[in-house]
Parts: sequence; structure tokens; C-alpha cells
Amino acid sequence: MAALPSSDSPPNVSRDVIRVHDGAWTSDVDALAAEEPMEIRLLWDEDGQLHRHSLAITMRTPGDDFELAAGFLRGEGIIACREDVLDISYCLEEAEEQRLNVVSVTLRSGLDLDLARLERHFYTTSSCGICGKAALDALDLRGCQIMPPGPEVRSAVIRSLPDALRRAQAVFRRTGGLHASGLFDLDGRLLDLREDVGRHNALDKLVGHQLRRGRDQLDACVLLLSGRASFELLQKALVARIPVVAAIGAPSSLAVELAASFNITLLGFVRSEGFNVYTGVERVIR
Amino acid sequence: MAALPSSDSPPNVSRDVIRVHDGAWTSDVDALAAEEPMEIRLLWDEDGQLHRHSLAITMRTPGDDFELAAGFLRGEGIIACREDVLDISYCLEEAEEQRLNVVSVTLRSGLDLDLARLERHFYTTSSCGICGKAALDALDLRGCQIMPPGPEVRSAVIRSLPDALRRAQAVFRRTGGLHASGLFDLDGRLLDLREDVGRHNALDKLVGHQLRRGRDQLDACVLLLSGRASFELLQKALVARIPVVAAIGAPSSLAVELAASFNITLLGFVRSEGFNVYTGVERVIR
Repeated sequence: MAALPSSDSPPNVSRDVIRVHDGAWTSDVDALAAEEPMEIRLLWDEDGQLHRHSLAITMRTPGDDFELAAGFLRGEGIIACREDVLDISYCLEEAEEQRLNVVSVTLRSGLDLDLARLERHFYTTSSCGICGKAALDALDLRGCQIMPPGPEVRSAVIRSLPDALRRAQAVFRRTGGLHASGLFDLDGRLLDLREDVGRHNALDKLVGHQLRRGRDQLDACVLLLSGRASFELLQKALVARIPVVAAIGAPSSLAVELAASFNITLLGFVRSEGFNVYTGVERVIR
Repeated sequence: MAALPSSDSPPNVSRDVIRVHDGAWTSDVDALAAEEPMEIRLLWDEDGQLHRHSLAITMRTPGDDFELAAGFLRGEGIIACREDVLDISYCLEEAEEQRLNVVSVTLRSGLDLDLARLERHFYTTSSCGICGKAALDALDLRGCQIMPPGPEVRSAVIRSLPDALRRAQAVFRRTGGLHASGLFDLDGRLLDLREDVGRHNALDKLVGHQLRRGRDQLDACVLLLSGRASFELLQKALVARIPVVAAIGAPSSLAVELAASFNITLLGFVRSEGFNVYTGVERVIR
């Protein structure tokens, strides 16, 4: 295999974890995929005046940030070739902790920029600040309270969840293309299941369905995610007051930080043989 | 298992497919997860005046649309309980084909709405119109040309790609938490690989890295996606002029529509034993 050109490997974040496997509990250190928000800003000269525009914020794994900015602009039809970009740099005006999360792209003048179209045509997905810390602070500011202690859930119940979800996911088995969010009670009984091509949508549908039935505090429930646990999914779980979040996939670094900050129990790689406990182990009964 | 309350199963879309397995080619019909954009609009009364605000567009699987809108608003801290919502309905003012893709939520008056904060705090991910057809039209309007015929790639090369990607994904093996995009030449040699917690970012990084080296037309390449193929990923591939997109996961309905409209070869469920051909079979050499 050919050597890869200048591939800086995305950073991992080390984090203590308790591995539960066939009844044995062991402490270990896990490598998590790093996740941080990144803002893309445009700079360009028009009639001798410097213009600025904050175009997008995306949750990304740090690394290859200039490539990410260039590729995003290419995908949106803002640039077409290398010559359309005069410069790409981190934004040194920002506070130190945010500097590496803001990328400024200086465009060549004369580029046909239709900002109104850009604004109108962007999909939005979720919310919050800019660096990871700011994102967590923003949740605080939005009035999200730390989850109180309890309730507890048995380890055997957690291990039973993936099979229960899969049995209920008839559509998933047919198309192989849908993410699922499952809501369970503390005895592992499935209360609700929603699916979508987008994992955020599957969770929104679940929370929205419960809310429309008058259940806006899901504080005696366990949430199971069919895939990975990102910051945005944890944020949605926090707002819905779900104390235990289990994922069949891996959590991101910022998902674990959020769970730790707000006292959510976060479990990853959940299987019938075991799972990893990232935060809130006191809610798990051995 | 308890019966699920009012779960309307997300719709599937049937689509012709050619299954390649151990050298045998068979025609079949595949069920794809449906994907369509949905816009969420807010309506509220303030001092006797009706206000409107288009809040977000998300790519979703149709079904549970009112639940999706309610859950999204809950996640963003706009509503907290059922009573905050007076009404949720499809937008009947829209043209017929778009009607079921626009959901209007009427909020109770007196709700504390900070629209400036909402605008500022939304992450944006990608672009385009509102119904699937409009999204495809918008690509046309943005000057995306239909891909010309060729090049061709051998079926054995396609089957070799997932292993080559996995071998190169050292980070993936460590964290289990990263999506990857791999770029290959027509002989299956890996040209570039980028990873990220977000699959759109992984592809943006790849395209951006190539563009920054002066390669803005990737028309003799095959793209391999480590997960599923969504509309947004196909859109990015189209803009980068990649003629063959292979995914280890399933494609969505709108991804297949885009590939068909713009003559991209789209392959799904790629394994060492075989793969599915959704569009552009003439580029695959038996």
C-alpha cells in the first residue's frame, strides 16, 4: 500500500473506563475519538474593504482542519480550485482555548459569492458554543441542571438491551440503513423505539413522541443508541432528563465530558457479554 | 416485549439493484431507507401579531414528523413540555410535493423565545433545497454537470477496497469511533484517507486535501465510505467529480436518486465477497 501523503492522524483522548465483561469488572484506560466544534469563517476583499462572514460550525475530530475548511467550501460550491483560496489560518484573535477551533479562509477577490443563498440553503442540525468548554458552559447557561443521583439499573439489564432493540428493529433488518434510539424502563422493557437515516432525528422523534404524551422528564429511563454516542446526542438526552445513556458504538471525547459534567451515566460498546462504563458507575448494579 | 405505542414504521423505498456475489450477478429489488429534507417552522403570536420563523432543515426519514419537530424543539430548549405547543401541522400553503416536508409548530404565546441566540447557536452541516426533487434541482442550478461516461473499474478491485481501508485505519481500530473516507485509483491503490467523528467531515477533509494539492477533478478515482451513503455525501462526491462511490453500509433513497440523476456509479454493502450496484453499472467490469 502506498504511503499516505501528509496524513496527520486524528488525535485520541485517553479516558479512564471500567470494562464489564462476563461479570468481571476491570479498570482500564480507553482511547476515545476526539470531538470539538470548529467554526469556518470567510474573509474577502470587495472594493478595497475587508468583509467577514461566519459560515458554519461543525463538530469534528481535530486534525486536517484546513483541509476540512477547503473541502467544505468546495462541497458548497464556494470555491472550485486551489487558486480560489488566498490563505487558510487559525484565528489568532480568539481566546487561546478557542484558537484552534476557528479557521479563517481568505478568498480571492472577484469570487462570485452569494451569501444570501448560502444562508438560506444551509441545513442546521444542533446547537451550542464553539470550543468544547464553551459548549458545556452554554448548556449550563441554557438552564440544564446536573442530573440528581439515581436511579439504579442492573448490569444484566444493560446487557439485554441490544438484543431487545434489534428484535424490535424490523425496518433496520430490511434496509440496513437506519439508526435507532430505544427507550427502556429500569427492568429492560422497551417503552419506545424510533428510527431514522439520521441518528439525531431518531432521538428527536423519541423524545418528541414522549413529550407529546406528556412525558417530558424521562428520569426513570435508559436510552439505547444503535450507533455511536456524540456530544449532540448526549445534549439531547440531558435536556430530556435521561440519566442513563447506553450506546452500541463508541462515545466521543466530548460526549464523555458532557456526561461527566452533568452526572449522566454513559455506557459504550454495549453487548450481551458486557459493556464499558465511562461515567456514572454508581447507577450500575453489579 | 410490549407493543410500541403508535409507531408508524418509517417507509422504505424499493429500488432495482444488481447483486454481485462470488462472481455471480443477479437482478433484484432492494428496500432502501427513505430520506427527504424536512423544514421546521415556528409560528407564534406576539402582541396580537402572528410571527413566523424558519428554524431548521434536517434530512430525515419521513414518518413521526410531528414527533421529530417536537423533539428537536425540546432539544434546543425552545419548548419544555406539551403545553408549550398549541398545534403541529404540515404546511398546506406549500406546493403539493413539498407539503409533507414542511412542519409548522405553533407555540403558546408568552414563551421566552430568543431567536438571536437560536440563529447564532445552530450548527450548519450541508446545503440545498427542501423536497428531494427540489434538492436535486438545486444541484442542477448550482452548475453541477452530469458525470460523463467512464472510467471503468474491475469488480475484483471494488471487492478489495474495504480490507485496504481497514488496514489503513489504524485510528479506527484503536477507538472504534471514527468514520473514514478513502480515495483509490482504478487499480485499487489507496491515494488518500481521512477520518473524523462526522462522516461529512471525513469526506470534506479528503476533498479539501486533494484540492489544496491542485487536484480539483477526482474523475479517475473511486471513493470508499466506511459507513452509509447519504444524500449529502453523494452531493459532496458529485461536486468533487468522483464517478464511482462505494459504501460499506447502505445508501439512502435520495442518495440513489442523486446518483441516478447525475450518472454516478453507486455501490453499497461492499465486502470482499461482493457488493450491490444501485446505479451506473456500466462502469463496473465483470
